[in-house]
Amino acid sequence: MNVQEILQAAKQASVACGTASLEVRNDALSEMAYALRTEVDSILAANQTDMDAAREAGTKESLLDRLMLDEARIYDIADALEALRDLDDPLGVVSVDRILDSGVHMQRISVPMGVVAMVYEARPNVTADAAGICIKTGNACVLRGGSMAHNSNLAMARILHDAAVATGMPENCILAVETTDRSATDELLRARGLVDLLIPRGGAGLIAHCVENATVPVIETGVGNCHVYIHDPADLDMARNIVLNAKCQRPGVCNAIESILVDASIAEDALASLLPALHEAGVILHTDALASTAAAKAGIPAVMAVEDDWAREYLDLEVAIKCVQGLDEAIAHVNRFGTKHSECIVTEDEAAAMRFLAEVDAAAVYWNASTRFTDGGEFGLGAEIGISTQKLHARGPFALEALCSYKYVVCGTGQVRG
Amino acid sequence: MNVQEILQAAKQASVACGTASLEVRNDALSEMAYALRTEVDSILAANQTDMDAAREAGTKESLLDRLMLDEARIYDIADALEALRDLDDPLGVVSVDRILDSGVHMQRISVPMGVVAMVYEARPNVTADAAGICIKTGNACVLRGGSMAHNSNLAMARILHDAAVATGMPENCILAVETTDRSATDELLRARGLVDLLIPRGGAGLIAHCVENATVPVIETGVGNCHVYIHDPADLDMARNIVLNAKCQRPGVCNAIESILVDASIAEDALASLLPALHEAGVILHTDALASTAAAKAGIPAVMAVEDDWAREYLDLEVAIKCVQGLDEAIAHVNRFGTKHSECIVTEDEAAAMRFLAEVDAAAVYWNASTRFTDGGEFGLGAEIGISTQKLHARGPFALEALCSYKYVVCGTGQVRG
Repeated sequence: MNVQEILQAAKQASVACGTASLEVRNDALSEMAYALRTEVDSILAANQTDMDAAREAGTKESLLDRLMLDEARIYDIADALEALRDLDDPLGVVSVDRILDSGVHMQRISVPMGVVAMVYEARPNVTADAAGICIKTGNACVLRGGSMAHNSNLAMARILHDAAVATGMPENCILAVETTDRSATDELLRARGLVDLLIPRGGAGLIAHCVENATVPVIETGVGNCHVYIHDPADLDMARNIVLNAKCQRPGVCNAIESILVDASIAEDALASLLPALHEAGVILHTDALASTAAAKAGIPAVMAVEDDWAREYLDLEVAIKCVQGLDEAIAHVNRFGTKHSECIVTEDEAAAMRFLAEVDAAAVYWNASTRFTDGGEFGLGAEIGISTQKLHARGPFALEALCSYKYVVCGTGQVRG
Repeated sequence: MNVQEILQAAKQASVACGTASLEVRNDALSEMAYALRTEVDSILAANQTDMDAAREAGTKESLLDRLMLDEARIYDIADALEALRDLDDPLGVVSVDRILDSGVHMQRISVPMGVVAMVYEARPNVTADAAGICIKTGNACVLRGGSMAHNSNLAMARILHDAAVATGMPENCILAVETTDRSATDELLRARGLVDLLIPRGGAGLIAHCVENATVPVIETGVGNCHVYIHDPADLDMARNIVLNAKCQRPGVCNAIESILVDASIAEDALASLLPALHEAGVILHTDALASTAAAKAGIPAVMAVEDDWAREYLDLEVAIKCVQGLDEAIAHVNRFGTKHSECIVTEDEAAAMRFLAEVDAAAVYWNASTRFTDGGEFGLGAEIGISTQKLHARGPFALEALCSYKYVVCGTGQVRG
């Protein structure tokens, strides 16, 4: 099927997806998990084809690691489908229930979006995550994964589709775009009336392309230029722990920090504690004038920061450090350079914390805790399909609830408007 | 100020808008209402300039009526601002409150969007409705009204702005685009990072232009190709009442119906009751073959419907009538031609009603009640800034809640992720 045929088929399937009982949807998730475990060999064979081609093309190791599947990873993916099965039904939730003045009975009830399109890059696990969350929320699902993982994605999508259909979900409930042609993504982006929601998952380039070219509704995800701000007064041991965790625990993810702001009034002590620890952890330091002086004094190598550093998402063991004249400058800096993802203040001053939490414009704002907690699992959502950096519909980590809309259901006995 | 300057100013104002206390926001609404009443003469003078120019340009009466302000209308607009003041605070509402496994305290709290841009056509009352709802929800507001109402809009925006600032809202909380240049709209549509939400209000052309060209988040509003479906068995008197109300009470609005579907098995009786009543009400009938026969038999003039009629939004005393072979065809027709606005089934069969309510994809679905109830006031929202026909973020009539986002606020004592 070409993209238009896939979308038409998904649209048609979406009605039956949305009215499938919870039992059928949950059975499908069980069967999908079972099928992944049973067919692990064929998935691994498809993945091997992708891995060989990627290696031949000289793909770097970190990307190969994202692409690679093994039995343990496939079992983890299957476990995640079973975890979805065990979550409460997101559909049919009544959020408003009212008898109107006219006597009609009005309810606002959660319903599926309809057709959800997922555009993503090298990680083949997104295929199963997206398919699973769509099944649970009664959405038809159109998958458009990266060309590097094409064989892995098609193999998994076929297995997941067949398992879901075998347990009573409609034909075409899960469909993968079969071509690696880049124009397929643009067709999805502009399929008004056929795609009810498009979610891009991947690097900044992919996300910007989707947001700038989509005419269908989009949830913008993932780019994270996050900060820790060390305010005066702060517990400097706590500040160092939080910075090290937020920067080093997993530097390639979007909730890792990219800049540290330090009140100039405590910069000397704060940096004397911080710079050696970061250096020891292998972090390259991009420092402003004051922080450069502190680094030199401590005999620690540092690069003089340039204006671009405040906006850079290193996604690596690098960090920018800037000294600020207090809370106002810190908030202004974060609101100027941040990407509305996750922002932290370390302080012993509650009033300052309250101002930071209120005035910083981000999906998640932290007082004395690591930005690394911004995660669907950590936040108790039971799943995660992305982390939204926009404010429309879903913000921060999102999962089942964000893949639902609602409708007003109004029942009367012949009432008309006066 | 040019559009970029306006957006920068609004963005800067948005932080203080969002942290203004409920008391300050409510005082602003009171003062805005008072100022409109006090300055009614200057508003009417500005409106007279617009009316004169519109008359000279040969604008048709129905549009002139939308443009026209008089003392009574301005007082109504002021009353609406006071009604907003009396609604509960939409900000600071805690929707999730949880101690996470790590021991940090996480809350999901409603916050303003930031900068809301409103793009609208001839109705100058939208200026005050949008400004008021933005003040209540702590958003900075950028208004871009139609050129025909330019003087009216600028006069009202200035008065509303000055009143809000006088009671403690920040300078630039309410700004109107000062040029009538059409490129200003496109600048708003593409102001990523400066516009957090754009709402178009107007005809199908304006809305399509905004949705197709926006790179900022948009809520699509208002186009309504709505249906009443008369199912067998139905109470035909009830069906006639609902059809007449939904078609004739206010034919120019989006929740009025444009097509009637009738089960062929009861078409003879149903149309014998319906066609004379519609004809008497002055409604032009576009009928399919079976309905044309019924019209001829009753001696009532009718035009043979063409395929285009099923998709037409007449917004006038015209309706298309089609006979269908039962529920499946009716649901398929509505899902194909409807605009996801408001859809009604008239039936005495509860099972059929349940299927229609579940399977029709629309913001509001009705059983035995008029589609005209789709309205923020009727639904008890206390206000209305538009009726959304998309499924992302807001669906159906929307008001305060839709102009808010949320943020996750996480407080710890030094926790880091393990």
